Amino acid sequence: MVAEHTVKAFDEDITRLRGLVAEMGGLAELSIAEAMDALVQGNEDLAAGVIARDKRIDQLEGEVDKLAVRVLALRAPMADDLREVIVALKIAGVVERIGDYAKNIAKRVGHIEGRKRFEPLTLLPAMNELAGEMVHDVLTAYAARDPVAATEVIQRDAKVDAFYDSIFRNFVSYMVENPATISSVAQLMFVARNIERIGDHATNIAEMVHFAATGNYLPDRGDVPAPAV
Amino acid sequence: MVAEHTVKAFDEDITRLRGLVAEMGGLAELSIAEAMDALVQGNEDLAAGVIARDKRIDQLEGEVDKLAVRVLALRAPMADDLREVIVALKIAGVVERIGDYAKNIAKRVGHIEGRKRFEPLTLLPAMNELAGEMVHDVLTAYAARDPVAATEVIQRDAKVDAFYDSIFRNFVSYMVENPATISSVAQLMFVARNIERIGDHATNIAEMVHFAATGNYLPDRGDVPAPAV
Repeated sequence: MVAEHTVKAFDEDITRLRGLVAEMGGLAELSIAEAMDALVQGNEDLAAGVIARDKRIDQLEGEVDKLAVRVLALRAPMADDLREVIVALKIAGVVERIGDYAKNIAKRVGHIEGRKRFEPLTLLPAMNELAGEMVHDVLTAYAARDPVAATEVIQRDAKVDAFYDSIFRNFVSYMVENPATISSVAQLMFVARNIERIGDHATNIAEMVHFAATGNYLPDRGDVPAPAV
Repeated sequence: MVAEHTVKAFDEDITRLRGLVAEMGGLAELSIAEAMDALVQGNEDLAAGVIARDKRIDQLEGEVDKLAVRVLALRAPMADDLREVIVALKIAGVVERIGDYAKNIAKRVGHIEGRKRFEPLTLLPAMNELAGEMVHDVLTAYAARDPVAATEVIQRDAKVDAFYDSIFRNFVSYMVENPATISSVAQLMFVARNIERIGDHATNIAEMVHFAATGNYLPDRGDVPAPAV
């Protein structure tokens, strides 16, 4: 009876851990979409909301850390269960960073001059959507414990990287032709880079989901490629 | 006798964990310095060495992860000991990211045209040195379990951030005046940003060292500020 009670308590802890990570992920997804909307619309209130939400994501990461440590201390889980706790801890850390990137994009709203029909800005939403979908789909794969769906997300990262390289080249040409916009376009370069990093982090999560589900690392772990440009 | 044996084995594991983290840190410090040297000298061989070293840093992180999981599984440590293992795991993750930033800087060697006495490039080494010192000093604080030295590192991050803001403004002016250099200066902007992130990550480690040594979180955790520009 004691053993059964312990197993049940452990399952409840894991469910709570996964729930916290899912909550963090939902907030991060929302921030990715809203940060780009705020940038495109020049909407500083929306940007302020994204920045405020990041504090909540940070708090949730703190809760994941504390709960994970308590589970490790009280239940001393083994094998698959231990892996489950460690992976929740690590994914929470990555989702927190994704939230930071969305916040960084939001912080640039207000530093882009002449926003109306500003050509470089029109290139970013499609790239942002790709990266946002990667985050959404990898969190779905985590919830479903689905290593195949996770691996599929990793393959999409090359598309985001190619998008980034193309945007970088386009921005450089634009600055050469429109020197008055250099300051604003430089800001947008960092936005493009932040989006590219969100894609990388979705890939990192996918690797962890794969590890959690199978116990095996994928052959090449967590590389952060510099742009080819 | 069994208990004593277990305590000794645990201490050996922790010493090994800390040794792996120190080894990662030493390699990351070397990469920070060499990436900047490679950039200033236009030395692609040196850059290739930094890029190759990053693979070793990634491997060491994998070893830390595996050892930490084994310690948690076999020894089920409590309280201070548990915190020690979790902090080693987290610091290894951050050092791995610092290695990635150094690698990203190295990857830009070869994309900077007209390197000889290229004015924007002369601004970066001093900033890089500041960030490299933060990494060095926070790892020393970790080795010495010294929360005061760790807190002192955190205070220095504002200097790196101010450096970054000033360099960003300078680069924008330079591009306006020298449109032919825009592509190269844009590369250097990312280098400056990578250095700024290295400073942020040294700060993150400092917070973890403080937590490991005292059991308390510092009031404001792991924020990644966007530049004021």
